Amino acid sequence: MSRTMRVGVLGAGQLGRMLALAGHPMGVRCVAYAQQPDEPACAVGEHVIGAWDDPAALDEFASRIDVATYEFENVPLEAVRRVGAKVPLRPSIDALRVAADRIEEKTLFRELGIDTPPFAAIDSEDDLRAAVATIGLPAVLKTRTMGYDGKGQRVLRTMQDVDGAFTALGARPSILEGFVAFEREVSQLGVRGADGSIAFYPLAENVHRDGILRVSIAPARATIAIEETARAYLRAILESLDYVGVLALELFQAGDRLLANEMAPRVHNTGHHTIEAAETSQFESHLRAVAGLPLGSTALHGHAAMVNLVGALPEPASILAIDGAHLHLYGKEPRPGRKVGHVTVRADDEAGRDARLAEVLRVVDAL
Amino acid sequence: MSRTMRVGVLGAGQLGRMLALAGHPMGVRCVAYAQQPDEPACAVGEHVIGAWDDPAALDEFASRIDVATYEFENVPLEAVRRVGAKVPLRPSIDALRVAADRIEEKTLFRELGIDTPPFAAIDSEDDLRAAVATIGLPAVLKTRTMGYDGKGQRVLRTMQDVDGAFTALGARPSILEGFVAFEREVSQLGVRGADGSIAFYPLAENVHRDGILRVSIAPARATIAIEETARAYLRAILESLDYVGVLALELFQAGDRLLANEMAPRVHNTGHHTIEAAETSQFESHLRAVAGLPLGSTALHGHAAMVNLVGALPEPASILAIDGAHLHLYGKEPRPGRKVGHVTVRADDEAGRDARLAEVLRVVDAL
Repeated sequence: MSRTMRVGVLGAGQLGRMLALAGHPMGVRCVAYAQQPDEPACAVGEHVIGAWDDPAALDEFASRIDVATYEFENVPLEAVRRVGAKVPLRPSIDALRVAADRIEEKTLFRELGIDTPPFAAIDSEDDLRAAVATIGLPAVLKTRTMGYDGKGQRVLRTMQDVDGAFTALGARPSILEGFVAFEREVSQLGVRGADGSIAFYPLAENVHRDGILRVSIAPARATIAIEETARAYLRAILESLDYVGVLALELFQAGDRLLANEMAPRVHNTGHHTIEAAETSQFESHLRAVAGLPLGSTALHGHAAMVNLVGALPEPASILAIDGAHLHLYGKEPRPGRKVGHVTVRADDEAGRDARLAEVLRVVDAL
Repeated sequence: MSRTMRVGVLGAGQLGRMLALAGHPMGVRCVAYAQQPDEPACAVGEHVIGAWDDPAALDEFASRIDVATYEFENVPLEAVRRVGAKVPLRPSIDALRVAADRIEEKTLFRELGIDTPPFAAIDSEDDLRAAVATIGLPAVLKTRTMGYDGKGQRVLRTMQDVDGAFTALGARPSILEGFVAFEREVSQLGVRGADGSIAFYPLAENVHRDGILRVSIAPARATIAIEETARAYLRAILESLDYVGVLALELFQAGDRLLANEMAPRVHNTGHHTIEAAETSQFESHLRAVAGLPLGSTALHGHAAMVNLVGALPEPASILAIDGAHLHLYGKEPRPGRKVGHVTVRADDEAGRDARLAEVLRVVDAL
């Protein structure tokens, strides 16, 4: 008989929680590596508690799993290396390293022929001034590592903004990116199996507010040419990194141009709608790939929208009363700017989806 | 902010497991009452371990929950009463009592004008002979309580089968039911909220083998008149019992007649397809009702089929390789006749569903 497959997940936030929930039915048991026992993934499955620099806890974690993955890209590389020396790591540490560093990431995009905004590495105020002279303003200065949800970045609009910006951002290795006047932000998610097979989710379209994803709809309102370009980009990255698992690529669409913004080597917030709206959710897809199982269909049923719950929780009844609304809470205490859950709606057509989305936004915007 | 709602589930089998998995996203935390820590629900959430006659464990369980429910109908009534004295019990103990006794159940059906096969209470060999004289043969002799999956019953075809049958079945209070030459077995699932609102799932059609459900498809191939009758029956039961939660009614269809066979006051094996194929799964529906939350849509997306895995587990990859197949394992060791998992397929049309179902059966029948 078949044995339970154990997938270790470095990190225990909401992504780890939704991975664990997706694993249980198909006999894939997730073991989360958490810093604290109250992290979202801990309530739904096995876990090991330890600091990122605790070799004994990391070894205990590795001893309990068949394969390891990670649910966010800021896991310290040393911790990942230690676990990866004992069990297979999927995606590889290379994917993590590249995705965790904005310069490495954009350099890879460029090498693969993937269009990006203009960018330059910034290690000093002098570098910044020189780069602004080439790239122009407005531009965005971001730390190379550890940035997420709009943290660790400054928009530079005038030369006054430029002076001292590098120091103000902590004088850390940074990147300057040319500002793109885009029409919409989209994201392309896909999954590559251990056997090299690839499946793409339909392109999603995203709306951010204060640097945090607010709403995502799928499929995106995009031409077939745009969608084909997005898939070609993602395929190039998946194959060049011999990638196994779900990969998300965030892009700007400006007319016929599609420019890569960043990638996430994991399941992604813009793919949460796949739980209800896709034949196989991104969480199940990631686990199938990581566990060496066949990939499932990534086809979407109709039209979906997802609304993040940021900083405040609705009364569950206020969401559940909306026809077709699905509530996902992460078991986190609300704090300003913190993602504490999301709501998904689905409908057979776009108009139906939009009507449901409007109802959800009415509740969520009033929080 | 909203607090986590805790629903205690008496029983920790696969139904409790799927309830717990459905509860996590919407902030409803299930606490299972299990006899052993290796029962299916224990791996996916909180649980209390105790015997059915352990008052301290039952009280500990009751102290950790806001409301209680049960996941099978053979929970000893004393245990249910003890918990129900401390927290609200949904569905009520009356529903449990009626459903656990085939005579009480069929008597309720008759009182509500719900057609049933002819039946009689049997407490002796004399009773049995008298009932056979009235009802005729073939007929089925069943114990009034504790029967499931074809256990605790004997089919009587000739007068030789009748002699000594009551004694052979343990001389326990029993029921004799006239044998119905039915065309198909169907089941009507529905849910009633704490506010009295009712939602019906589309009728499902079921195929048993050796007394155990093998395959279920939905929607059933039934006329609108049949479906309306099934809904009217279910509504009558829900309202007469002031029922809260999911209720399943198994029926025989013989021409235009629809005869009630038995009811289950809980989520049901013939509703497992609702996880993938309905807007709101039966597990989420039951928890919404029990937790006093608004009911969700019970609409089905396309056509679904479910195949039980009985006595043997397939290699997960052999199922997951089938387009659109969803694997559900319960974390149980296989034994002959034991339900250890199920597989669901869905498609937009009946032919597509049937093609996928055939592929699943090819794998499952070869086990």
